[in-house]
Amino acid sequence: MKNKQWILKKFPVGEISEGDLVLEENEVPSLSDSQILIRNIYLSLDPANRGWMSGQKSYVDAMQTGDTMRGGTIGIIEESKNEKFKKGEIVNCMGGWQQYCVSDGKGVRQIPQGTGFPLDCYMSILGMTGLTAYFGLLDITDPQPGETLVVSAAAGAVGSIVCQIGKIKGCRVIGIAGSDAKCKWLVDELGIDSAINYKSENLRQKLKETCPDGIDIYFENVAGPILEAILPMMNVHGRIPLCGMISWYNAGRLGADALFDTLSLPKMWRTILVKRLSINGFIISDHWKQFPNFLNEVEPLVNEGLINYIEDITQGLENAPQQFIGMLDGKNHGKTIIQLF
Amino acid sequence: MKNKQWILKKFPVGEISEGDLVLEENEVPSLSDSQILIRNIYLSLDPANRGWMSGQKSYVDAMQTGDTMRGGTIGIIEESKNEKFKKGEIVNCMGGWQQYCVSDGKGVRQIPQGTGFPLDCYMSILGMTGLTAYFGLLDITDPQPGETLVVSAAAGAVGSIVCQIGKIKGCRVIGIAGSDAKCKWLVDELGIDSAINYKSENLRQKLKETCPDGIDIYFENVAGPILEAILPMMNVHGRIPLCGMISWYNAGRLGADALFDTLSLPKMWRTILVKRLSINGFIISDHWKQFPNFLNEVEPLVNEGLINYIEDITQGLENAPQQFIGMLDGKNHGKTIIQLF
Repeated sequence: MKNKQWILKKFPVGEISEGDLVLEENEVPSLSDSQILIRNIYLSLDPANRGWMSGQKSYVDAMQTGDTMRGGTIGIIEESKNEKFKKGEIVNCMGGWQQYCVSDGKGVRQIPQGTGFPLDCYMSILGMTGLTAYFGLLDITDPQPGETLVVSAAAGAVGSIVCQIGKIKGCRVIGIAGSDAKCKWLVDELGIDSAINYKSENLRQKLKETCPDGIDIYFENVAGPILEAILPMMNVHGRIPLCGMISWYNAGRLGADALFDTLSLPKMWRTILVKRLSINGFIISDHWKQFPNFLNEVEPLVNEGLINYIEDITQGLENAPQQFIGMLDGKNHGKTIIQLF
Repeated sequence: MKNKQWILKKFPVGEISEGDLVLEENEVPSLSDSQILIRNIYLSLDPANRGWMSGQKSYVDAMQTGDTMRGGTIGIIEESKNEKFKKGEIVNCMGGWQQYCVSDGKGVRQIPQGTGFPLDCYMSILGMTGLTAYFGLLDITDPQPGETLVVSAAAGAVGSIVCQIGKIKGCRVIGIAGSDAKCKWLVDELGIDSAINYKSENLRQKLKETCPDGIDIYFENVAGPILEAILPMMNVHGRIPLCGMISWYNAGRLGADALFDTLSLPKMWRTILVKRLSINGFIISDHWKQFPNFLNEVEPLVNEGLINYIEDITQGLENAPQQFIGMLDGKNHGKTIIQLF
């Protein structure tokens, strides 16, 4: 049986370019004992995936050239030689940018069925994306009514959910996004207090206008010049959950200070000390055990329409690279997903 | 009545030089209603004081040129027009680099008497210094037995207490200090596992040797190249209480990246994310309400000899600047105190 796969041929330098990823067709290997064969249905495209394409070890092993591009998937088990999994079960795992994956079952989780939610929900609001927003905001920052929460990449998959949970918790919520359409959607549809188009507006000035009492919580998705504008506005005892740094993912070796004109590490360190800030990096895969609690709390909110979610679904594995590049450039609206069949 | 006072004449650029602080003699003003007159007995010299000499607002109001140099003191009330304070009481406050201070009582705390501890203890182990070590280590990092704790400025006032509390909690404790004598004292007298002389040894190499399981907690007092060597050694879910940044206090505007050759902010941010680190700035004056609990726990440890402390006491207000400059250069051993009479 044939398997189309996107292979990482070269580590991209800066933006991903043609030839870094190549679509190949290879044979699906036959299963050994305790393995399962999964046919991928949905592929999740996330900014963090770009960080994996560096050859550097991070919270996951470094990818090597020649590897199938790594990515989160939802798929159906087509064959199982593992007693924990049955043919026909729907599962979530790191199935990669390919039609089929063979797994030993490690990191493969069954998705609840018969819940009334469409399957793609378990890739967005009821999946890793929702849990990231939920855990990162609630457990790390303990937001209080009346506090000011600023969210970068606010119209993105995680950001848009953080915004809404912030509103439910009684925060003043300011979103930062990259187009007027996204900003309008954030205010009109998600009901946040204000949104700033960082591409067309003076970010520092608008932050002063929209955050008259300073910023208590900054949900960090982007870093770069947005972080630089946020930092002087942080209040004493402010909290910064560090979820992503999309503006730096394309920055090659990440050593290039030219990207970051004026905010030096000593200034950052001084601000953390003087303002008594808490900065917490987090990776949602550390927190899967909170998943059942998360579902119990969030499913009713989605059912009652208190949390909206938006998905940017494109058909066809062949379109994965262009959608991925577009997402890193902010062209997506909501959770970016590839539907494989 | 005459009052000798060190006046801040110029904001130092880089290291403090002659003429930045000038000793003057002025008249003590007579008391208004609700004021108290305190005769200073001990003056505390702390690295953070250098950070106040910048004209920049921090967690305290910016000092202005012409102000009496700011500093923590223990003194005796000589006269009181405030019903909360009585003549003869011993108090702790920000009495400044001078013989006498007049206060409205705000931020003035009575020191317990008849405890059997000498008065200077309430400026070191049983004062702000001890509370800083205690709170910063225990409340922020929750150290677990078997974890590796690295302490910079380990022979300093705060660092030496952090080292000992870390040992009591069952951590493997590695201290970083600036002389062989300090390192020997840390290992032989305080009983920590290993000490590194960062001035004469290869810090990165020695960290690898002494921390074979990586670093779980880094108690940050110095920043600069020591931080740079520590960071790649941090374990997943590591904690960094940010207590001070002595190597940067003399760095003028703190923007000078030349001071910090290779560790850029993007690299730092990536490490926080990938390693899921917690960085917490703290200022001990936020936590005075924990002081009674602190005394209840630490007084017995001091009495039983389980915590040693060392004080570097110099007689005479006129010697304050040279002792302060020496401390910033690591010449002190233990808590630096000026005894005024």
